[in-house]
Amino acid sequence: MTAAPITRPRRSPSPALLKALTEVLGERLSTGAALCEQHGRDESWHPAAPPDAVAFARTTDEVAQVVRLCAAEKVPVIAFGTGTSLEGQVAALEGGVCLDLSGMDRVLSVNPADMDATVEAGVTRKTLNSHLRDSGLFFPIDPGADASLGGMAATRASGTNAVRYGTMRDSVLSLTAVMADGRIIRTRRRARKSAAGYDLTGLLVGSEGTLGIITEVTVRLAGIPEAVSAAVCPFPSLKAAVDTVIETIQHGVPVARIELLDATSMRAVNAYSKLSYAEAPTLFFEFHGSPAHVAEQAETVKALAGEHGGADFAWASQPEERSRLWQARHDAYYASLALRPGSKGWPTDVCVPISRLAQCITETEADLKDCSVPYALVGHVGDGNFHLVFMVDPERPDEVTEVEHFNTRMVDRAIALDGTCTGEHGIGYGKMAFMAAEHGEALGVMADVKRALDPDNILNPGKIVPV
Amino acid sequence: MTAAPITRPRRSPSPALLKALTEVLGERLSTGAALCEQHGRDESWHPAAPPDAVAFARTTDEVAQVVRLCAAEKVPVIAFGTGTSLEGQVAALEGGVCLDLSGMDRVLSVNPADMDATVEAGVTRKTLNSHLRDSGLFFPIDPGADASLGGMAATRASGTNAVRYGTMRDSVLSLTAVMADGRIIRTRRRARKSAAGYDLTGLLVGSEGTLGIITEVTVRLAGIPEAVSAAVCPFPSLKAAVDTVIETIQHGVPVARIELLDATSMRAVNAYSKLSYAEAPTLFFEFHGSPAHVAEQAETVKALAGEHGGADFAWASQPEERSRLWQARHDAYYASLALRPGSKGWPTDVCVPISRLAQCITETEADLKDCSVPYALVGHVGDGNFHLVFMVDPERPDEVTEVEHFNTRMVDRAIALDGTCTGEHGIGYGKMAFMAAEHGEALGVMADVKRALDPDNILNPGKIVPV
Repeated sequence: MTAAPITRPRRSPSPALLKALTEVLGERLSTGAALCEQHGRDESWHPAAPPDAVAFARTTDEVAQVVRLCAAEKVPVIAFGTGTSLEGQVAALEGGVCLDLSGMDRVLSVNPADMDATVEAGVTRKTLNSHLRDSGLFFPIDPGADASLGGMAATRASGTNAVRYGTMRDSVLSLTAVMADGRIIRTRRRARKSAAGYDLTGLLVGSEGTLGIITEVTVRLAGIPEAVSAAVCPFPSLKAAVDTVIETIQHGVPVARIELLDATSMRAVNAYSKLSYAEAPTLFFEFHGSPAHVAEQAETVKALAGEHGGADFAWASQPEERSRLWQARHDAYYASLALRPGSKGWPTDVCVPISRLAQCITETEADLKDCSVPYALVGHVGDGNFHLVFMVDPERPDEVTEVEHFNTRMVDRAIALDGTCTGEHGIGYGKMAFMAAEHGEALGVMADVKRALDPDNILNPGKIVPV
Repeated sequence: MTAAPITRPRRSPSPALLKALTEVLGERLSTGAALCEQHGRDESWHPAAPPDAVAFARTTDEVAQVVRLCAAEKVPVIAFGTGTSLEGQVAALEGGVCLDLSGMDRVLSVNPADMDATVEAGVTRKTLNSHLRDSGLFFPIDPGADASLGGMAATRASGTNAVRYGTMRDSVLSLTAVMADGRIIRTRRRARKSAAGYDLTGLLVGSEGTLGIITEVTVRLAGIPEAVSAAVCPFPSLKAAVDTVIETIQHGVPVARIELLDATSMRAVNAYSKLSYAEAPTLFFEFHGSPAHVAEQAETVKALAGEHGGADFAWASQPEERSRLWQARHDAYYASLALRPGSKGWPTDVCVPISRLAQCITETEADLKDCSVPYALVGHVGDGNFHLVFMVDPERPDEVTEVEHFNTRMVDRAIALDGTCTGEHGIGYGKMAFMAAEHGEALGVMADVKRALDPDNILNPGKIVPV
């Protein structure tokens, strides 16, 4: 893409600091250009900004040592998990040291009786779920990418299962984190509830590495449901599909997944995943529970869909069919990009109260009538959350500018409807411009918290909140 | 009781400040001794500490004016809802102005489609539920007392329904709050999820008026279940009852309530509420869902109970029977006090991971063999949370001292089992001594946040975190 790179004064580590870091990490401290370049980039269209060095830490104590050494020189420290963020969260806007936590990949404990697990920050959700195989439990949060648990906590990730199982806000029970001065804290104990003091867990979840570096995560697990059933159903219009979603939620059906794909997404998915679904606005459903309860949920939803013209339910009850269905859903992003070879994706993300969802989507569709850049719409609509993926030609700055305008109008629309500029992708530096409109005076309070916990602004500077 | 009163330097308002406050509030500013005395006291045994004045605010703007005027003189401001806290949360330890929010009692909006409601801080949970009558929705958090929503948010309250519906941490979607410098913030918009910045909602929930004064609360509502069924079942031992609870949770039964009462509590409840339950360790259950799902849940739990000697289920399916049953449960505190006429209650509260619950209760029971003060045990055991109520003779300082020792040992035991010193009563000043043992270095981070948001320590000083 050709958007202007961010230019901020660099705060690069001195040779003495690099030497001290090497004494701690040996060969796990690197200043190689390619490695730095790779660590300043996430999966989004946002311009990359490489750090000056990458530190591969293996323990919380090593993280604390790195932070303390960098703090002494006021050099930025940017935490890095799998680099799958979407708003430039890992860009080293002022240079500094990238702290790659992917080597902190141990599952530390699983407590089946308490339905929780504690892992190091670099463990990915798929690794954890493989580890849990045969335990009867699973970790339900599923943002699509096989992200690290540390990164998912730091960005308050959610995804397809959030409508039933919540987001990382609900799933993280406790964290170990290194603060800007090198202090190591445990935010909370493992009891399911506590009224003992400020909720530091909640404060760190979603703080994108700007208040502390998350090194261990204790998450709640869910029981693998006795029965699972999934279905795909096309609708005559986006509005008909969205109205079905709204009524499903309002009827209190504890649907596990309820995902919307527009006609373009369905065309993309059919081509990419060699499927033959109807190329119409479509809902993907999944139901969890006892066999009787799953059947009851499915019947209720089928009746609601029927009232909105959605009658053609294709059921997938075998695990392999379901995997194929959800893999297709997760591949929708790449499938969309394949519709325009050579294009780069600009994924956007807003979330509104569910009562406003039909209005927000309908007005957005109308606005996009004039858009010259192809796009597809997908959504975790049970949460009121939806995404557009614009397939931008990276050689054409006019397309970037055009999409910026549509994106800004969509965010403004969501905020005006009492919604948020991001349901799950986070702020990074890509959405900082919307924070004032969304939060008003509260943004100043966020800045107060940032200044108190990171007075020299070394933790992922230039993200979330201007200080 | 005869515990030594807290002596801290007072920061009383000057005559000029009182005059300025009167200009704002007229007769709604009072310095009457009886009124001040009443506002420095909660429902606990902790010594009261009266404020110098009570300000009855009616709007967020009035609250902001009061805070700004007090801030200019560094005079403490203590928020007051219904005064039903249990750890001295409302005591004006350094004098100052009590801000009584009970007059902020308007339900501002109910959004049935989004299943949320926004109320002023003084609205109580029963008032909100009366207002919701005929909407098909209810507000599920039920701490027993008819507390105000502002107070419940400020203390992160929970209660009997938390096992299914969560605590105030989960239920509060957004808050309006007045900060220590008089800034008015809205912590969040109404979208069900957001990844936009720091979770100020979570930071204020449970902060007990030490970081900001909550003036409006947006809470999630739940759908009134189609079918409800409740039952009472005695067990041969506390352990048998607790093991039934643990297995119920581990089986993933979405029980709405699962409450433990020991034999003493059952004796108290029978006498107080004129009932004739078996005077043995007993579980009270409630199931919510579709008729078929409720029947399925009840069957599963009955089978689990049977394996632990709990066979004698007394069912209450009529609303009146259920109300009577739960009223008896809620009256257990007063019922216990009535067992020892003239006694005063010392309610304690710990919470541990559910895998440690049987051990924690068994060891606590063994420890209490030597206790000369009568007590009863009740618990929201589905959360791993239980209470003791000691029935203390207020004329006997030796009893207070004795109970202090047992309480300290119980809290130490809970913390050693990876639990918390309070599952739901909060810290106030009654449990500050346990914060360091529970939180370690994290307590310093809490203090940093407090100092940043309230540099002159005017908001409810002497509570939660020492600064």
